[in-house]
Amino acid sequence: MNPSASRTPPLPPHPAPATVGMSLDEVDTPALLLDLDAFERNLARLPASLRGVSVRVRPHAKSHKCPDIALRQIEHGAIGVCCQKVSEAEAMVRGGVKDVLVSNQVVGATKIARLAALAKEAKMGVCVDDLGNIADLSQAAQRAGAKLDVYVEVNVGANRCGADPGAPVVALARAIATGPGLTFAGLHAYHGAAQHKRTPAERKQGIDDAVAKVKQTLALLEQAGLPARIVTGAGTGTYPLEASSNVYHEIQPGSYIFMDADYGRNLGADGQPVHEFEHSLFLLATVMSHTNPQRAAVDVGLKAHSVDSGLPLVHGLPGVTYVRAADEHGVLALTAPATVTLGQKIRLIPGHCDPTVNLYDWMVCYRGHHVEALWPITGRGRFY
Amino acid sequence: MNPSASRTPPLPPHPAPATVGMSLDEVDTPALLLDLDAFERNLARLPASLRGVSVRVRPHAKSHKCPDIALRQIEHGAIGVCCQKVSEAEAMVRGGVKDVLVSNQVVGATKIARLAALAKEAKMGVCVDDLGNIADLSQAAQRAGAKLDVYVEVNVGANRCGADPGAPVVALARAIATGPGLTFAGLHAYHGAAQHKRTPAERKQGIDDAVAKVKQTLALLEQAGLPARIVTGAGTGTYPLEASSNVYHEIQPGSYIFMDADYGRNLGADGQPVHEFEHSLFLLATVMSHTNPQRAAVDVGLKAHSVDSGLPLVHGLPGVTYVRAADEHGVLALTAPATVTLGQKIRLIPGHCDPTVNLYDWMVCYRGHHVEALWPITGRGRFY
Repeated sequence: MNPSASRTPPLPPHPAPATVGMSLDEVDTPALLLDLDAFERNLARLPASLRGVSVRVRPHAKSHKCPDIALRQIEHGAIGVCCQKVSEAEAMVRGGVKDVLVSNQVVGATKIARLAALAKEAKMGVCVDDLGNIADLSQAAQRAGAKLDVYVEVNVGANRCGADPGAPVVALARAIATGPGLTFAGLHAYHGAAQHKRTPAERKQGIDDAVAKVKQTLALLEQAGLPARIVTGAGTGTYPLEASSNVYHEIQPGSYIFMDADYGRNLGADGQPVHEFEHSLFLLATVMSHTNPQRAAVDVGLKAHSVDSGLPLVHGLPGVTYVRAADEHGVLALTAPATVTLGQKIRLIPGHCDPTVNLYDWMVCYRGHHVEALWPITGRGRFY
Repeated sequence: MNPSASRTPPLPPHPAPATVGMSLDEVDTPALLLDLDAFERNLARLPASLRGVSVRVRPHAKSHKCPDIALRQIEHGAIGVCCQKVSEAEAMVRGGVKDVLVSNQVVGATKIARLAALAKEAKMGVCVDDLGNIADLSQAAQRAGAKLDVYVEVNVGANRCGADPGAPVVALARAIATGPGLTFAGLHAYHGAAQHKRTPAERKQGIDDAVAKVKQTLALLEQAGLPARIVTGAGTGTYPLEASSNVYHEIQPGSYIFMDADYGRNLGADGQPVHEFEHSLFLLATVMSHTNPQRAAVDVGLKAHSVDSGLPLVHGLPGVTYVRAADEHGVLALTAPATVTLGQKIRLIPGHCDPTVNLYDWMVCYRGHHVEALWPITGRGRFY
């Protein structure tokens, strides 16, 4: 026997921390909670906020990784979803979504073959910023007998991926347009760095810059006889700007359904936090140690939320602050007269929704004080 | 039909990113890699470093969450493992581990009932710092017909959980000793805050303080006729200090099998990084965008590693630095003459091993350039 071979027998699937009908106080912790009333208001507010504006909505599924949410977004007018990874897109297509844009480069033979296979089951789009990658996609699409919508990603300010605006985009668009199995669908122009700028003026400056870069590129594409059918981009922080730009045809907000502590720090024109969407996503924690009047520990630590954008906020308990995270512990500071009791369940607002959701297998959906549904997060960990 | 009911059909289990025998270049990314040669050297070095010292080793499974690793630690002399959560302990017991200490408080009826049920299958220990919790554990143990080893957690400096040293510990020990179904096993005295102090002097100061608090408490327990059989604690950063203290009977290092960028910053007496253990844990990433000579993007972002202790280090590529993480992207800065190519696979050393391992379902074990085994991380996401 190979001494390094696995000796672990299969484990039953991860059980959900709740059952339908249970009261919130009975839910095991840590749990990822979705307040259905707030979630449904957020779902409806996005199309309401776009009334009179001609723009398609393709919400980003990287925030929720949950087909149950994608289907509800589509019922509220979305044309499909965005994903960041092929395996995430597989989870969405298996869950019933028929139109997916992988808003990212797909590099490597294994991933490209899976993307092409998926395009036989659903309408699939993908982004590119490299000529060799376009050739690889074309080969795979032909081999699978599939068609791929291909968007050129333009670097409009995030300085991460994407071709520089202008001539480099035209060269890529031409290669797509002549690539068998591929359709030149348009431009992906997402300004990630602008989403969390705190003031409206900074966000507007970011999107004005992006729009100028896109316009210049669109003009060159027209001259080259390669018109871009769709310009897609935008997130929760800036989407009203892209939607009203007369340049973007499609917007991709993701976090709007949940919100998080970090988005809660974005300010509106009045200098107050933007209140368009509500916090609907919470972490349920249990007070597991309380041996000092100024301090307590909860069971929600670094493995139950992501601290990349700061610590979670304690919901509805003035004087109680989450001040430190260890692997499996959160330390609460208690400012008198605030108190907690051992075993008490408290709700936290995560610092950053996307990587936090990715830690959970189940979304515990509640209304009022009772669990109404359990939605599997089938895209969890699907980062291939 | 309930409109909030889930409509998602079950998805097949998450596929592994590799197959045994594959070359490393064929492994899909992101992947969690284990260098078996380095891992096996780390496994053997821990007992070797303790030769002549009388101390039991109970490694912490919160770092690996992988029964295949736990079994190999036991083959190298460990008496069992620590876990932080009951569900993590369930994964270990299902994987063949017969002796588990949950080095944490277990609060809440559901969790306590599961802990008691597990004690029918394996020797189970648990920590307490509250009288009511002791009563709950006793009831559950009696109901299950099980015995639990109970340790009083002493706050020796981490200021998180645990009773204050001295009299409060004695009161808890007495309640355990008189609690049906419970055995007073000793003290849990882990100084988490001392593990990552950078200089040996700071780490020694922390553990000297902890040892003094434990000694004072042990004397009071002796006087009360409640001798502590076992004092357990210590991590990778400080274990030689506890092991040679003549006070600790058991040590709990976890990260030593993997190491990470943060532990790599701990210094030895010579002012150089401590080199006792090697980096054996890596993230495999693909260069997915490279449109600028000074910059590239890899497919390993915030959902594929935890940034709580800093960004990952690029392994073996001088001039290439991981400078920024987004949800699914890592931005690399390239300092001439360093170059990368699109599709290139690179290895990263994670900033913090424990919460990074928790993001993966599979450990891809390799030797030289080939995959030798796939170990399921069955404790992944088991934070209940």
